[in-house]
Amino acid sequence: MVSGASSPADALAAARLIGIDWGSSGLRAFLVGADGLALVERATAQGAATLSGADAYAAVLDQAAGDWMRARPELPVLACGMVGSQYGWVDVPYATCPADARALASGMRRTPDGTALIIPGLLTDGGGLPPDLMRGEETQIVGALQMRPELREQACIVLPGTHSKWAQVRGGRVERFATHMTGELYAVLRQHSVLGRLMQDSGGFDEAAYCEGVEMARDAGHLGMSHQIFSARSLGVTGRMPAPALGDYLSGLLIGHELRAGLEWRADAKLDHAPLALVGSPALCVRYQLALKRYSGVQALVLDNTAPAGLLSLAQAAGVIPA
Amino acid sequence: MVSGASSPADALAAARLIGIDWGSSGLRAFLVGADGLALVERATAQGAATLSGADAYAAVLDQAAGDWMRARPELPVLACGMVGSQYGWVDVPYATCPADARALASGMRRTPDGTALIIPGLLTDGGGLPPDLMRGEETQIVGALQMRPELREQACIVLPGTHSKWAQVRGGRVERFATHMTGELYAVLRQHSVLGRLMQDSGGFDEAAYCEGVEMARDAGHLGMSHQIFSARSLGVTGRMPAPALGDYLSGLLIGHELRAGLEWRADAKLDHAPLALVGSPALCVRYQLALKRYSGVQALVLDNTAPAGLLSLAQAAGVIPA
Repeated sequence: MVSGASSPADALAAARLIGIDWGSSGLRAFLVGADGLALVERATAQGAATLSGADAYAAVLDQAAGDWMRARPELPVLACGMVGSQYGWVDVPYATCPADARALASGMRRTPDGTALIIPGLLTDGGGLPPDLMRGEETQIVGALQMRPELREQACIVLPGTHSKWAQVRGGRVERFATHMTGELYAVLRQHSVLGRLMQDSGGFDEAAYCEGVEMARDAGHLGMSHQIFSARSLGVTGRMPAPALGDYLSGLLIGHELRAGLEWRADAKLDHAPLALVGSPALCVRYQLALKRYSGVQALVLDNTAPAGLLSLAQAAGVIPA
Repeated sequence: MVSGASSPADALAAARLIGIDWGSSGLRAFLVGADGLALVERATAQGAATLSGADAYAAVLDQAAGDWMRARPELPVLACGMVGSQYGWVDVPYATCPADARALASGMRRTPDGTALIIPGLLTDGGGLPPDLMRGEETQIVGALQMRPELREQACIVLPGTHSKWAQVRGGRVERFATHMTGELYAVLRQHSVLGRLMQDSGGFDEAAYCEGVEMARDAGHLGMSHQIFSARSLGVTGRMPAPALGDYLSGLLIGHELRAGLEWRADAKLDHAPLALVGSPALCVRYQLALKRYSGVQALVLDNTAPAGLLSLAQAAGVIPA
């Protein structure tokens, strides 16, 4: 979240931290104030997937925030996300669940040029299941707990996206989490599968078709996701759904299947009476909020970008700025 | 299935029918003998998706089987598959379930040039669910019932592929069916998603990794397919599964989810004590047979290409050749 307007000089003077959310496909740089809100935000498309070698990362960081770093050289620079992967700037080993802000802070590594600290991703494991991974979302979760202390005791935090993350929080720690590839499935099915061929852009959001998809996943999801998605073709071929509605219908089906699995997983963890918070872009959170309401009347708390607050919390937990 | 060797002239003399299995991505032409086996088989890549307009279809048919048609002009020519879709040679309306060979035969349409009869696809519907569609597989199912009469009373017939079909058969009729986009999901995830990036070709089949995927879908499939497939990345990133094994693991996961839904659907229809037959390419049927055995010890009957037998049965049901 971005705090109220102030002049660039005021923002620079008030900043406590230079924070970087550096994912695969882009970078966002923040001047973070004492309240955990971004005083200024900048974005570039120079994500970790586009970069190779320490010099390239250092140059991009300098372009994005070099003026801030020179004006306030005493401010710590903290970065989270794929910048810390084995293909990133520094390979920062995953922290393991259960983990709180202190555990994440103790796993930070400094870049070779000394300019920035990089936050570890998080790994969850156990129960005979394969491991699951996140990089960047752990910082957003820490930020959500900072901004909404009522989530610390018990909560389910959902971060919708290309790879949605569902996290179980107890006592301020992330106990476990699960990834759902919902956003990427939608993209590859729409762009590369037979389902995309009949779809037309509606230029808007077809709420009725979207909700039909959500409810179809809820009511008949036991028939299987790979079966149900084919109806985004059969409904089009038979003319029972207009072509501009098919994309939102498929989106509803895929998100409905995410809720089907995620809400059962949340109930199995006895978190179905704890708050459910959505953290992410407002447009996507609105879609998920609508789906949750339709699926089972779940009311979700919605938080916008909590990465700045998370970066500030982790800087405090690491002792690089006073708590 | 192709019958024993014979000379081209003998095959032509013995043929009862010229059969064409004309799908989206290819065409197979058969001289079909009285036993429903192919005496000769030819294949081309000129599928319906590559053709536009009646003249193009007529020219491809002539290339594939024109010599047979001129040598035996009295033989009927029957075609099934996407050639009968609204984007094909002739738009042949779907027959609706429940349907037997007679119902399919009565829905055939002749091509504008009079050379061939085209078999309708099949539509299933009802129970408040979206419609489901097949074109081509209905002919293979009819062929399976012709070749294995013990399947006519009650059976579940599974046709694995890009779009796998599960069909419920009772009293010689297809009562209902369900498509699973398993093969296409595998292809788009491998070629276009983050999951494909870590995968390496193994040059063989990693049975252990495949079975691990099947069992993961069986034992923890309630966690959701879009969650579980992400483990084909997390197992690679963490080095817990070697890169050449990841593709077969993902294949096992996706097929395992198809079985999870399909076997429950079969049991709901009270067909779990009826035979389960796999119809398709031997390599794919072996994979499904292995998965079925691992999943729940189900023994499947395996049939190779049953399209020639189905084309013959439908020609007989239509009265264009004597039964």
